[in-house]
Amino acid sequence: MTSHTAESARIVFSRNNLHVKRIRDLQRREERERTGLFFVEGMRLVSQALHHGVRLETLLISPPLLTHPFARKVARQQQRAGTPLLSVPADVYHSVSLAEEPQGIGAVVRQRWTLLEQANPRTGLCRLALDSIRSPGNLGTILRTCEAVGGAGVILLDESVDPYDPATVRASMGAMFSQQLVRASPEEFLDWKRKHGCLLVGTSPHASADYRSVRYEPPVVLFMGGERKGLPMERQLQCDAMVRIPMAGSADSLNVAVATGVLLYEVFGRRHGSDSLPLAFPQSAPSRE
Amino acid sequence: MTSHTAESARIVFSRNNLHVKRIRDLQRREERERTGLFFVEGMRLVSQALHHGVRLETLLISPPLLTHPFARKVARQQQRAGTPLLSVPADVYHSVSLAEEPQGIGAVVRQRWTLLEQANPRTGLCRLALDSIRSPGNLGTILRTCEAVGGAGVILLDESVDPYDPATVRASMGAMFSQQLVRASPEEFLDWKRKHGCLLVGTSPHASADYRSVRYEPPVVLFMGGERKGLPMERQLQCDAMVRIPMAGSADSLNVAVATGVLLYEVFGRRHGSDSLPLAFPQSAPSRE
Repeated sequence: MTSHTAESARIVFSRNNLHVKRIRDLQRREERERTGLFFVEGMRLVSQALHHGVRLETLLISPPLLTHPFARKVARQQQRAGTPLLSVPADVYHSVSLAEEPQGIGAVVRQRWTLLEQANPRTGLCRLALDSIRSPGNLGTILRTCEAVGGAGVILLDESVDPYDPATVRASMGAMFSQQLVRASPEEFLDWKRKHGCLLVGTSPHASADYRSVRYEPPVVLFMGGERKGLPMERQLQCDAMVRIPMAGSADSLNVAVATGVLLYEVFGRRHGSDSLPLAFPQSAPSRE
Repeated sequence: MTSHTAESARIVFSRNNLHVKRIRDLQRREERERTGLFFVEGMRLVSQALHHGVRLETLLISPPLLTHPFARKVARQQQRAGTPLLSVPADVYHSVSLAEEPQGIGAVVRQRWTLLEQANPRTGLCRLALDSIRSPGNLGTILRTCEAVGGAGVILLDESVDPYDPATVRASMGAMFSQQLVRASPEEFLDWKRKHGCLLVGTSPHASADYRSVRYEPPVVLFMGGERKGLPMERQLQCDAMVRIPMAGSADSLNVAVATGVLLYEVFGRRHGSDSLPLAFPQSAPSRE
């Protein structure tokens, strides 16, 4: 790790510049994996990274696009702090950006993985284990909801999706930076789960138990399968409980990020006493229940 | 409406063929609105359309891609039923398709809108009113969840997203065909809501009432705001109840499709007596509640 100096600002005019090209290359998974870096874009994500104490390897700015006062302030502060700064014209920024309306600020950040043996199952509300999630957007949305309920993070049991994909990072709205990301083989995961006595709750539309019928006694791990086929039977058999989210009519499945959200809020509600809430609208007619 | 004849199969070899071009043009919103048509792709969506009694204006097939026996059966049945059939080579099908792995079957279908005055607020579990939803995928996911809980459909209060966008149709997983789609101005919607005595429940992270504290006494309409700014204050003031979905830590919002899912399942759970469910796993230690 090189130490930062105040002289590290660099003004670049070509999209073929090596530094620009390296950032653009981070759109590709193999390049992210080779370098261990990823690119976060926009004011919100950059400030979330800083909020979580993440060190910026490079701050990319495009002054003509940097119209928001807060974004300018972040750029100024980072320059003062000695973060390597790359300043580019709007067209060069656009060549790197995947945003519809780029805010002219982005940062190269080092990926952060948590080792399974360092993942404490009693941290946070619960943890998610994910098998064969394919959509980067779904993974990002899942991370966002997991952060919202105070969950600890996700354990990825396969390599079907890269959590540092730009679409995941964007959909996570910065939850990437607060959530622990673990990659483990199914065997390692099961050993860990057994060692810590976790309650592993899997989901399937064919399970007989309603998701509301389970006591989510911590430490809880919710096990979600992929978009296409859900949890394979082999994985279902490894669960302590299999639950279904009931459905009406001819519907046969939910979007995996929605299903995860419904389950996470069930666990959250149990932990935070939903039954004891005062009725905010007692003026309405008695309920049918 | 022209009557179908058994001679209506057409084999086309060029992607510039007028019929192929017309289908491709349906990727553009203005063309969908001009014609009142849209294109559904893949075996699942085509069969969902048929399951809901939707008439196919044209069935597009590509025999080299049509490898699944069920898809072939659908094509055979439709040809027998006299549906106009357009048969194209794989490359021409790819020029029309947005699917990653096209199954070689798609259909042109007429859009179906429900008039507000024909929308019965006592149909189904509840209804959704949507303001400024921008992401076609989010709208499709919302439709999918609304179908799953037995909801009646959505009322779109602005034109920011077209429910017949290919990304909406795909994410809906066919819920398009069971859910009522209504478009109305905010004023028309409020008149309708008052006339029918609906309980209009809006959401905001700043509301004081927890979403679990409301008696969702039917007829219920859940009012969801857009991805960027949520429900504008003016709309919040029109609600009978404003609720928030609680969040932990620094999270300040949820993905709108996830938030809608959590609310819909709360209403669903109330209507279907979540409290009376037997505990499926009484062997676990007593819960802390």
